[in-house]
Amino acid sequence: MRFTSQTVSDGISERLFTLSDVPGVLWSPDGATGRRPLVLLAHGGGQHKKAPGLVARAHHYVKECGFAVAAIDAPGHGDRPRSEQDMRSVAVLREQMAAGRPVGRHIARDNAARAVRAVPEWRAALDALQGLDCVGADGPVGFWGVSMGSAIGVPLAAAEPRITAAVFGLAGHETLAEAASRVTVPVEFLLQWDDELVPRDSALALFDAFATREKTLHANPGGHTAVPAFELSSSQRFFTRHLVGDASAAAG
Amino acid sequence: MRFTSQTVSDGISERLFTLSDVPGVLWSPDGATGRRPLVLLAHGGGQHKKAPGLVARAHHYVKECGFAVAAIDAPGHGDRPRSEQDMRSVAVLREQMAAGRPVGRHIARDNAARAVRAVPEWRAALDALQGLDCVGADGPVGFWGVSMGSAIGVPLAAAEPRITAAVFGLAGHETLAEAASRVTVPVEFLLQWDDELVPRDSALALFDAFATREKTLHANPGGHTAVPAFELSSSQRFFTRHLVGDASAAAG
Repeated sequence: MRFTSQTVSDGISERLFTLSDVPGVLWSPDGATGRRPLVLLAHGGGQHKKAPGLVARAHHYVKECGFAVAAIDAPGHGDRPRSEQDMRSVAVLREQMAAGRPVGRHIARDNAARAVRAVPEWRAALDALQGLDCVGADGPVGFWGVSMGSAIGVPLAAAEPRITAAVFGLAGHETLAEAASRVTVPVEFLLQWDDELVPRDSALALFDAFATREKTLHANPGGHTAVPAFELSSSQRFFTRHLVGDASAAAG
Repeated sequence: MRFTSQTVSDGISERLFTLSDVPGVLWSPDGATGRRPLVLLAHGGGQHKKAPGLVARAHHYVKECGFAVAAIDAPGHGDRPRSEQDMRSVAVLREQMAAGRPVGRHIARDNAARAVRAVPEWRAALDALQGLDCVGADGPVGFWGVSMGSAIGVPLAAAEPRITAAVFGLAGHETLAEAASRVTVPVEFLLQWDDELVPRDSALALFDAFATREKTLHANPGGHTAVPAFELSSSQRFFTRHLVGDASAAAG
């Protein structure tokens, strides 16, 4: 893990890094030392590790909870090169959208292929992050990722015992149910009632498939990108409940 | 409205009252004066205005938010006489349960009949409560009631423009969809994924039926009575968001 830059703003340190050619970013309270909860943020399709929504979320978790927060670019996203397969996939997606055809299946298949590459990258990033003093080797680890972030995160959480709580959503069961059936940690699942990319029944079936008894579904009206702002604070309380074990948060 | 007793404990005033033979209870911060949000609590079937869950909820809203909170006994419940119809209905319910038959339809029909009596009682209680100095005539009003509390609350919220936010749940669409289609205020809806009384699809259809765009569904594993404790705080934040208009709560 090689740090390439550090900036500090409003008490939040932001460090860019690369790890075996995967670019990433780590946010933490400025000057933080010692073990603390770490939350991994996986961006959505077409986005990147420093997309505005991710940065705002990272700042919120650092400021409100004192967590460390990390994101990496998914394969074919952000500062990473696009493979021929990536280019082909984007071209097919654009064609289908231009033709007004449903694209959910294409996206699900594409995301599943991308997850095969992304899961080991996240596990390597976690290894490296836990080697840092401001994270620590044995602290609790949360995962947040919806849409493509869940396509990567559900198999990651199934494979990675260090992840102890996860927020998923905006994804369906077709390519993810098997991995979900191996997820036994607490899950908060976001569903958009009028999601134009993920059929409602498919998202409900994915929620149903998680093996954990500690799962909670939050469904809100609107399309794929219209998750309401109050779900940010809800995820903060979810992570506090499960990564900190705060008694007052446990009632929240 | 005739107050029959007052006790104060831990800074919370509890006053019992009767209004045209309907017994009720009002909780408020001890010594409170002036306009404040009022939350109406409707108990479930077989319970009463001072069931332990209701008292705990009322205390929570008074202590954490400074709200006034009121509950009344539903027809045939608590300190109210049982009519012949009430006795018959309970006998049928017991027979069906003893025979292992599904009771959801019987309960829904019974609740619908009870709501016809309960809705005007709630509206009269609201008239009287808004005449009190510690509530005020034009303050915001929230409603919380699940199961039979929703069977009464959904038609109440459809009929009563003073209610500006409502928590419902553990109820299905069959007898309630029409009233739900006239509810235009923010709704938080609780669904138990393994509800033995309310089929999942029926509860999802009721959530779908609410006319409001400001609705959020919280689904959790477990049976009819297994709503997790953290939903209490979630409802508190929901009411704060919509009855107080607190900017920080609006993000929560």
